[in-house]
Amino acid sequence: MPHIQLTEGVPGIRSLVIYRPDTGKPLYELAQVLLRGESPLSQAERELIATYVSAQNNCNFCTQSHAAAARALFGPDRDVVDFTLSEYETAPISEKLKALLAIAGHVQADARTVSEADVARAREHGATDRDIHDTVLIAATFCMFNRYVDGLATLSPNDPAVYEPMGERLAQQGYALPASNPT
Amino acid sequence: MPHIQLTEGVPGIRSLVIYRPDTGKPLYELAQVLLRGESPLSQAERELIATYVSAQNNCNFCTQSHAAAARALFGPDRDVVDFTLSEYETAPISEKLKALLAIAGHVQADARTVSEADVARAREHGATDRDIHDTVLIAATFCMFNRYVDGLATLSPNDPAVYEPMGERLAQQGYALPASNPT
Repeated sequence: MPHIQLTEGVPGIRSLVIYRPDTGKPLYELAQVLLRGESPLSQAERELIATYVSAQNNCNFCTQSHAAAARALFGPDRDVVDFTLSEYETAPISEKLKALLAIAGHVQADARTVSEADVARAREHGATDRDIHDTVLIAATFCMFNRYVDGLATLSPNDPAVYEPMGERLAQQGYALPASNPT
Repeated sequence: MPHIQLTEGVPGIRSLVIYRPDTGKPLYELAQVLLRGESPLSQAERELIATYVSAQNNCNFCTQSHAAAARALFGPDRDVVDFTLSEYETAPISEKLKALLAIAGHVQADARTVSEADVARAREHGATDRDIHDTVLIAATFCMFNRYVDGLATLSPNDPAVYEPMGERLAQQGYALPASNPT
């Protein structure tokens, strides 16, 4: 049960932005520009980084919802999502993305441990300043969302089927603030 | 040296929001509404929670800048900031704020560990849903800012004197996006 009174039946971040829309607005705007705006990383790659960080933080709601969004965006290559979550270094993803996931992992654990060697590895595989910037900000942002959702013990369904339509919606429509009175 | 090319001489978060203003905009809007908008917590208390979490994350730039803002906002009671950072359970702050700092500490370490007992302790001392919500979101938000600033190895001066005018500005003017070409 959530630690505060939230709209019944609404899961995760959605229940929180309905509770306080004035903080919800910049939170959703950040997600939209960071995960759907212009970037050298594809939307699928960005959702994969978000999913990986959420899994490292053991946040069930964010991991399942963003994994579903990443699967929808990867389309026929959707299996890379589960490969990456289980062991990204051997997953069928680019060497650049592996190096960026290593950086995201450092940001999640202790951001001060992102080393010059980590950054050099990413650059060797073609990462630009913007790739590195966006990776670090996505990782940092999900360290926030994960904590917001879990720190207030929001509703977090276990059934993966619940997350499929959520992932489709996030893939197709992006991050739009839910109506304050969802029906 | 920062991991990416940033405006020389501009420290911490300011260098990052100048680098990418379209993500900077919702980040500053979030800080403004969360730390300066309407809340049952005073602005000084909210800056203290932000400072405490930044110290737990060992983020020098955020700890020093928000400690300076908190000192400016506490005015004649400015010593509570350093008392709280050194040992908040014996600091001259309210029992409610101590209980909220305990919750913030759990959010920083592993948000899933915020327990019903932690929340009950805060409520016993008068905390409402909004106190608890705002505390969790401030703690989560600074877990993001700390990681963003440190994950890209932004400029982080050691001299406390550098942060005094910064703290005064944050206390008086709040969070306004810096000009893209600071002079």
